[in-house]
Amino acid sequence: MNLILIDPSELPAPGSRRFALSLTGRRLVHLTSVVQPKLGDDLQVGVINSLMGKGKVVEHTPTRITLDCILTQEPPATLPMLLLMALPRPKMLKRVLQTAATLGVEQLVFINSFRVEKSFWQTPFLRPEAIQEQLLLGLEQARATQLPQVLLKQRFKPFVEDELPAMISSRRCWVAHPSGQKDAVQTNHEAAALAIGPEGGFIPYEVEKLQQAGFTALSLGPRILRVETALPVLLTRLFP
Amino acid sequence: MNLILIDPSELPAPGSRRFALSLTGRRLVHLTSVVQPKLGDDLQVGVINSLMGKGKVVEHTPTRITLDCILTQEPPATLPMLLLMALPRPKMLKRVLQTAATLGVEQLVFINSFRVEKSFWQTPFLRPEAIQEQLLLGLEQARATQLPQVLLKQRFKPFVEDELPAMISSRRCWVAHPSGQKDAVQTNHEAAALAIGPEGGFIPYEVEKLQQAGFTALSLGPRILRVETALPVLLTRLFP
Repeated sequence: MNLILIDPSELPAPGSRRFALSLTGRRLVHLTSVVQPKLGDDLQVGVINSLMGKGKVVEHTPTRITLDCILTQEPPATLPMLLLMALPRPKMLKRVLQTAATLGVEQLVFINSFRVEKSFWQTPFLRPEAIQEQLLLGLEQARATQLPQVLLKQRFKPFVEDELPAMISSRRCWVAHPSGQKDAVQTNHEAAALAIGPEGGFIPYEVEKLQQAGFTALSLGPRILRVETALPVLLTRLFP
Repeated sequence: MNLILIDPSELPAPGSRRFALSLTGRRLVHLTSVVQPKLGDDLQVGVINSLMGKGKVVEHTPTRITLDCILTQEPPATLPMLLLMALPRPKMLKRVLQTAATLGVEQLVFINSFRVEKSFWQTPFLRPEAIQEQLLLGLEQARATQLPQVLLKQRFKPFVEDELPAMISSRRCWVAHPSGQKDAVQTNHEAAALAIGPEGGFIPYEVEKLQQAGFTALSLGPRILRVETALPVLLTRLFP
């Protein structure tokens, strides 16, 4: 936890920049067990989807830590990235959510694919509060505040044909695929979309549908990467 | 398992390119439970630190699969990279070993650092056979055969002062550090060394010692990445 995240509902008024914040629950437990701050210490704080700043420890009891917070800083820039991912298995899903939030992905859409096991869609880790938990862990790690928007699209064809076109207008679109080109021609911070397949890859029909929608195949080279490794590698190639 | 790895000791003679291979143990269990090949199927095979090719299934019983192997292919190129990593916590160590092998790192040196907990050096996951196991998993994932060389250097100062200089001669050397430059000036496939600190980073003394040894600080930007995310991001920036 490199940042204490504050929910906007905890602010005394919308847009408050100076306020006292009492921590209980998970944040208190983490602070007292790991960070162990002393009275007067300045901790990094940030309001979800808003500013960051410092919180000075002004009260510290076994059941409560109170911070005097001042928000002064913009959070680090996000990546103008719409990420389409074939839904990974639950264990990898958690890491993918954290990593996407840490790296600053703006939108993340989990899609179906022939090689996605149907049971993956039933996991409790897809509940909104479970998704939110992993995203917050990713933001706390990164020291950033902007929550990615996460969408679940369980039907591949209707999504790609009917909904995707409007989402990707004015984006440069890529699909990770072994047969693709080696170099991504992408100017820095140009809005992009990136589709990453499941273990075993998209089937040819799915790649064709994405190509028809305007996606260009991009090769990762001869080594086959796990999804959780492919994600930071591809994001770094598109946004060095 | 995208590749069946063969130990050189399993070959009928050193350098054999065509041979029969009987699989038992872990490889058999994985094949029968996940891959479920049929008689006549061609599977990807590769000899550790040597050639790759195909293995045709010529026998398939509950206790044994026999492949008729022909080696014809060079493995994918490695990265001319000497990676120095502050020893991560055991759980992350396993993932780091796999990822380094998957991405093709040639040499991996785990070093001490002020922020490395002493207990990390006691983990059974640092035993040679445990390290080997994770590296093989990484190679099987990547479909590559070249085992990274792994060294353990538990004393920071003597290593950096006495051993490191000879290891990095003619390499371009980088240390990940928030105060560093943003762009890595590194021509493609130039031999490199990269030092990645522990959670919380190298302390200033350690960064200074590495800089004295010829390392240039390289910034990852304002977001703080977990070591397992920083590794693919940095390797992609140095070898796009």
